[in-house]
Amino acid sequence: MIGRLNHVAIAVPDLAAAAAKYRDLLGADVHHPHDHPEHGVTVVFVQLENTKIELLTPLGENSPVAKFLENNPSGGIHHICYEVSDIASSIRTLVDAGARVLGDGKPRIGAHGLPVVFLHPKDFDGTLIELEEVKPELQPA
Amino acid sequence: MIGRLNHVAIAVPDLAAAAAKYRDLLGADVHHPHDHPEHGVTVVFVQLENTKIELLTPLGENSPVAKFLENNPSGGIHHICYEVSDIASSIRTLVDAGARVLGDGKPRIGAHGLPVVFLHPKDFDGTLIELEEVKPELQPA
Repeated sequence: MIGRLNHVAIAVPDLAAAAAKYRDLLGADVHHPHDHPEHGVTVVFVQLENTKIELLTPLGENSPVAKFLENNPSGGIHHICYEVSDIASSIRTLVDAGARVLGDGKPRIGAHGLPVVFLHPKDFDGTLIELEEVKPELQPA
Repeated sequence: MIGRLNHVAIAVPDLAAAAAKYRDLLGADVHHPHDHPEHGVTVVFVQLENTKIELLTPLGENSPVAKFLENNPSGGIHHICYEVSDIASSIRTLVDAGARVLGDGKPRIGAHGLPVVFLHPKDFDGTLIELEEVKPELQPA
């Protein structure tokens, strides 16, 4: 079911400072910030050789990241995202096995313009898992 | 400085159950458990297409993972590991910039038989970062 690790998302209190640290101190390839008002986050991608880090900070009211930062004021790893080739089939398999898909259980369009769902952390050892449907022909070689 | 994401480490209370979930439900390539008494952990590798997940559970007394699981009984993401090509040079750069290397500040041999250090999570947005020295010729293509 799961393919590549698409990204690790890290919630940060100060996006500019976090981005500068990854660029200037860790020497990584850091993209410009991107607002995603529909998801309540501003995101900076850090492109590594084999995957991405997403630095997230809250945007607007009711950001899903705001509560996490209240509980973890220094920031922390928020979720990991695995790629799947057929998200509808993945959801069926998971729900049949008793795993819980968050929200209404249906995929929505994520920050990359592709269908995503989040799985309940209690079903996966305290890890918030995002599944993103990535068609094989869209995957980098 | 940083190259590939070598792995994401997830601390789990029940290693067999976590490994079975990754193998049978998420359909991943899951290796056999490996005891590392010198690091106080038993580890199961989950090999993804582009990186690895390490499922960790405490082994013996004074495991570095035991306290994490006390605070997070369901488990959770424990650390992420970035590869570097010259760990001594990376440590110098980080320390010169004011970042803190845990322990005595010197690399020790990690679970993969390669030199590693851990960086203070407070210096990196609440994220425990491991750096592992991987010579380019040892990296998978």
